[in-house]
Amino acid sequence: MTRKIAFFLDNDFLLESEAARALYHEHAEKQPIIDYHCHLDPRLIAENHQFADLTEIWLGGDHYKWRAMRANGVNEAFITGKMPPYEKFLKWAETLPYTMRNPLYHWSHLELNRVFGVEKLLTIETAREIYDHCGALLHQEDFRVQALLRKMNVETVCTTDDPADDLRFHIQIANEGLPFRVLPSWRPDKALAIDQPEAFNAYMTRLEAASNVAILNYERLLEALVKRHAFFEAHGCVLSDHGLDTFYAEPYTAKEIDRIFLDARMGKALTALDARKFKSALLYDLAVMDADSGWAQQYHVGPNRNNNERMFAALGPDTGFDAIADEPIAASMNRFFSRLDREGHLTRTIVYNLNPRDNALMVANAYNFNDGTTPGKMQYGAAWWFNDHIRGMRAQIDALSDLGLLSRFVGMLTDSRSFLSYPRHEYFRRVLCDALGEDVERGLLPVSEMPFIGRMVEAICHGNAKAYFRL
Amino acid sequence: MTRKIAFFLDNDFLLESEAARALYHEHAEKQPIIDYHCHLDPRLIAENHQFADLTEIWLGGDHYKWRAMRANGVNEAFITGKMPPYEKFLKWAETLPYTMRNPLYHWSHLELNRVFGVEKLLTIETAREIYDHCGALLHQEDFRVQALLRKMNVETVCTTDDPADDLRFHIQIANEGLPFRVLPSWRPDKALAIDQPEAFNAYMTRLEAASNVAILNYERLLEALVKRHAFFEAHGCVLSDHGLDTFYAEPYTAKEIDRIFLDARMGKALTALDARKFKSALLYDLAVMDADSGWAQQYHVGPNRNNNERMFAALGPDTGFDAIADEPIAASMNRFFSRLDREGHLTRTIVYNLNPRDNALMVANAYNFNDGTTPGKMQYGAAWWFNDHIRGMRAQIDALSDLGLLSRFVGMLTDSRSFLSYPRHEYFRRVLCDALGEDVERGLLPVSEMPFIGRMVEAICHGNAKAYFRL
Amino acid sequence: MTRKIAFFLDNDFLLESEAARALYHEHAEKQPIIDYHCHLDPRLIAENHQFADLTEIWLGGDHYKWRAMRANGVNEAFITGKMPPYEKFLKWAETLPYTMRNPLYHWSHLELNRVFGVEKLLTIETAREIYDHCGALLHQEDFRVQALLRKMNVETVCTTDDPADDLRFHIQIANEGLPFRVLPSWRPDKALAIDQPEAFNAYMTRLEAASNVAILNYERLLEALVKRHAFFEAHGCVLSDHGLDTFYAEPYTAKEIDRIFLDARMGKALTALDARKFKSALLYDLAVMDADSGWAQQYHVGPNRNNNERMFAALGPDTGFDAIADEPIAASMNRFFSRLDREGHLTRTIVYNLNPRDNALMVANAYNFNDGTTPGKMQYGAAWWFNDHIRGMRAQIDALSDLGLLSRFVGMLTDSRSFLSYPRHEYFRRVLCDALGEDVERGLLPVSEMPFIGRMVEAICHGNAKAYFRL
Repeated sequence: MTRKIAFFLDNDFLLESEAARALYHEHAEKQPIIDYHCHLDPRLIAENHQFADLTEIWLGGDHYKWRAMRANGVNEAFITGKMPPYEKFLKWAETLPYTMRNPLYHWSHLELNRVFGVEKLLTIETAREIYDHCGALLHQEDFRVQALLRKMNVETVCTTDDPADDLRFHIQIANEGLPFRVLPSWRPDKALAIDQPEAFNAYMTRLEAASNVAILNYERLLEALVKRHAFFEAHGCVLSDHGLDTFYAEPYTAKEIDRIFLDARMGKALTALDARKFKSALLYDLAVMDADSGWAQQYHVGPNRNNNERMFAALGPDTGFDAIADEPIAASMNRFFSRLDREGHLTRTIVYNLNPRDNALMVANAYNFNDGTTPGKMQYGAAWWFNDHIRGMRAQIDALSDLGLLSRFVGMLTDSRSFLSYPRHEYFRRVLCDALGEDVERGLLPVSEMPFIGRMVEAICHGNAKAYFRL
Repeated sequence: MTRKIAFFLDNDFLLESEAARALYHEHAEKQPIIDYHCHLDPRLIAENHQFADLTEIWLGGDHYKWRAMRANGVNEAFITGKMPPYEKFLKWAETLPYTMRNPLYHWSHLELNRVFGVEKLLTIETAREIYDHCGALLHQEDFRVQALLRKMNVETVCTTDDPADDLRFHIQIANEGLPFRVLPSWRPDKALAIDQPEAFNAYMTRLEAASNVAILNYERLLEALVKRHAFFEAHGCVLSDHGLDTFYAEPYTAKEIDRIFLDARMGKALTALDARKFKSALLYDLAVMDADSGWAQQYHVGPNRNNNERMFAALGPDTGFDAIADEPIAASMNRFFSRLDREGHLTRTIVYNLNPRDNALMVANAYNFNDGTTPGKMQYGAAWWFNDHIRGMRAQIDALSDLGLLSRFVGMLTDSRSFLSYPRHEYFRRVLCDALGEDVERGLLPVSEMPFIGRMVEAICHGNAKAYFRL
Repeated sequence: MTRKIAFFLDNDFLLESEAARALYHEHAEKQPIIDYHCHLDPRLIAENHQFADLTEIWLGGDHYKWRAMRANGVNEAFITGKMPPYEKFLKWAETLPYTMRNPLYHWSHLELNRVFGVEKLLTIETAREIYDHCGALLHQEDFRVQALLRKMNVETVCTTDDPADDLRFHIQIANEGLPFRVLPSWRPDKALAIDQPEAFNAYMTRLEAASNVAILNYERLLEALVKRHAFFEAHGCVLSDHGLDTFYAEPYTAKEIDRIFLDARMGKALTALDARKFKSALLYDLAVMDADSGWAQQYHVGPNRNNNERMFAALGPDTGFDAIADEPIAASMNRFFSRLDREGHLTRTIVYNLNPRDNALMVANAYNFNDGTTPGKMQYGAAWWFNDHIRGMRAQIDALSDLGLLSRFVGMLTDSRSFLSYPRHEYFRRVLCDALGEDVERGLLPVSEMPFIGRMVEAICHGNAKAYFRL
């Protein structure tokens, strides 16, 4: 029978069994949010930004929505162009019904409902009313950034920051005594990008300024990074993050790396192999820094980026033209982690994959390096980016269950640029509780163990991350 | 509870919710069929062919059934050999129960039921009766080819034709004023096959004759193809198709292509790289022709073909010895489309993949090239060949939903060599309606939106293709 | 509604429809077990070993459990180290609840329940009682190895043996007239491992001793292997097995292979290509031997092994540091089988894959070589290792169904090192019956065909393997 519901995204949305509903309402729902990986702008938090309208907070920078609009035949002028905010919003409202079965349909209505209390579906007919309603709320004090985070029960946010960043906004936030923590995390991608020589050398200059180290050779590069790493640590950083197309684990000698680095610094073109050797060396040395500081480390692997040259020239990166790559990944991943493990430098590690065909692969290979020192030391990270939907989250949960320990999972993160994305934690928790509840209902888990399963849900939603990141 | 059904493939077959049944019976069922990609022989349509018996219409040329019979231990003499028609049919009847859970079990009974009204299961016991019943019908006027297409509610058929084809049967059909359209489509695979030099040069000779162009160099090859392209366009062609092992996007110079082409024409052996460069050039230039004509283009990528050398020597291609390849595909696909997009030559495009592990990959990468000019410009095509079963269709629908816009999907095609395959459209529509109906029933789509969802079903079954192909 | 169950793993565990329950209880449950591939130690059977305690029989050698314990933060001393048996067991009891949703949770409780009659869940609280209860039973005569196999209704066991093995324990077992058969199977992996020169040459010495052939060149190597192959055949061997990272099908000449073999014998380092050529030659010649003897052959492809160098140095192979590789496999697989088929040497063949993303790929490509001589000649083997869980078994069953003939499947094997693993056959049979029963219930299979489906279940559980292996 069709479920009778007042509003679409009601209290029991996604919870298809009694056990699921019990797990969600009695355990998951109450947990505060530790958003240990996102791309929120710390400046907006520090300045307690007030958004002008729904278009700014909701459509500015959200390349998921942009892709959907392009696919729906919307002209770029209404997406990233100069059309007025309401005109852009209207195109999104027109597109939204066409996203049915895409996670955007759920995300968007969850965000309107959970944050703004909207109980109507967004369509071209309801657009004006919803725009005005949300706009009016956004002008209130309690819809500024800090209030939004409070409302969403956020306990900790880890932003994504460059080693050369001065962390001034994190420092400002820390001094303000807010009811949640905003910690930096260390993302040294630019230091690895030696194959883009111009940007690389410009970045070295920034890093010299930030570290007060003259980066004359590879050793000095490490010295500069170690200084910044300590600076990040002093300001509460507990984890690093890497955005990689693949793992790098080429054999190399110190002498080679010195030569390659100097070549790059002098603007010489590098061979592909040279670039891989350099990345192999630096990725390793960065992991050693993380281990020395007792941080956790994250590896997001597998995208191909900026595939549309025309649009990259027009709009730059992170604008909706990235996708999923399909090169082998297991061999280099094992070489990389095995060396770290062998040399005693493998810290707590989370791997994320973008190609859903590799879910089992990633769990199985990551689990080669559990060593009994920390429950869940090697983590298979939450469904990422193109996988962040019901089926994708369920597939990640299932692969982790089938090949690893779901009970030790550190759970969800938003990975988002938007302050409205926190309902994705709710979305994940509902999917998680539904998976476990379904198993209880089907007799795959013993109903007598509901108390244990309830604690497991709480741990996955909150406690595991708290312990894992030592918060 | 076990559903009570009179006959196995009843009215509500595959429709497991009220919403699914409503969507199918009120929306999907009535839509005419646009079979925009198939391998039907236009001669048989033009000549309004009458089939001799069930073996001819059902077993002749159907390599799906052949593979199943070989796997079931049937001697080749009864499959492609010289055994009498009824003996062959009997072996198929013997095999059919052993295909339970394979799509052949459903397809076969759907075809017997929907076309011939057979309400019994085909087994060795019922074989004689069914064979005679269908044979008698096939001798009637209203079981000739044209009547079969009418009965199946076919509105448009796009066959698959070689550029050198004179389209005489299409011309004949067009002149007859049939109640459905039969359009050619452009499949220039043979012009790309420069790595099979003997066949390639023979084909150049055919193309010279068809185009009245002396193909002395690559420029003349393009001239010949452009002439044939215009000829196809004049006879109603609206789309091209390519059967590729992968996308080709090697860098090349015009000079290189000239040299490679002349080498091939003079019978010199080409290197693998030379062959890839030539294919990269021609595949690009063919796409430009499609864009110039405003056609849509299709790319079927990922098979490995003719894997059994012994049987290839005995029977030739398309006889049941093809399968699924596993080489990386994303990088060349992006390079290929990005150049077309950058240079302003990317027309409406459908990509199909054969390896089901790449469903998400294909949607994600194709969607890099939506540009807001046409809703659903970049299409992720219907579940193809080895994926054309309930789970495979559902996986294609789900991947498209999760990463793209299902609402803009141009829907099903038969890709078949058989005039009995039209119930596959019904099969697809039932799977589609069941997926959407299930979502409504589970509260994943709002029940209030059933009218919109109904229109979406109609669009996927008919309207989207009609608009996309400009029919 | 939540199923009311007395004990978790009750009679209807995993059987979610009436049809599933009927198929299991009336057909599957009664079938004897043909465990045609496992790693049981024939010595323990011959000597009718009595296990000291639950730790020895259950935790010794089980690297699935070891991986889970490491992931749960258990120190290696309690896993493979020198801690006392009960201390180790206690750590496992502590870990087990944390494996919920992992197959270990079901396997472990099935084993305790089906073999020892334990009706409690194993936790740290019940550990002592369960340990003592099982320990007391293990000291009884009817919990010795032979009694355990009888209790589990085992009809045939095929162990996994090296060509140089003297099969003394198989000979001893055969002479004892036990109520089940224990056959050797031929696993010549060490003869292929030319890329580990030291171990390879040591192995050649063993093989010389076993065969009484001086292995001076490649021809003599084949002569030695043919002699051992005949010896295995004489002692009841009916199938071979290969553990491969991939298929080898490089072109080579006899002269090259002679040179490569002599290089290896003289301790020269081989190139990677030389090693692949040698493996291509020997893998082919071994397949010819199998065809000559009318055996079936098995290929287990796709793991990456010993990924953790530190732990490999400490513990050696098969200790829980293996995982799933991701290199392309289809091309070489087709070349390998096509040559065997073309030259008339392709015997009945089972392929197993470790990467679940390749399920469809493996069925599709294996089925290129069915030739109508034997129903189900080319088999897609049961879900292997990291896939041996409910979803993995169901995915294997579904891929085989969608692309091949489930009805001809030779079914389950344990692949286990443990005498307690036989409930995995029950686990598989429940999953199989549930899949078929679900189809009947959903109207995907005609309910009228339940008798046929029942026979199909019996065949998959027992009859197909019996016929296929000619037992």
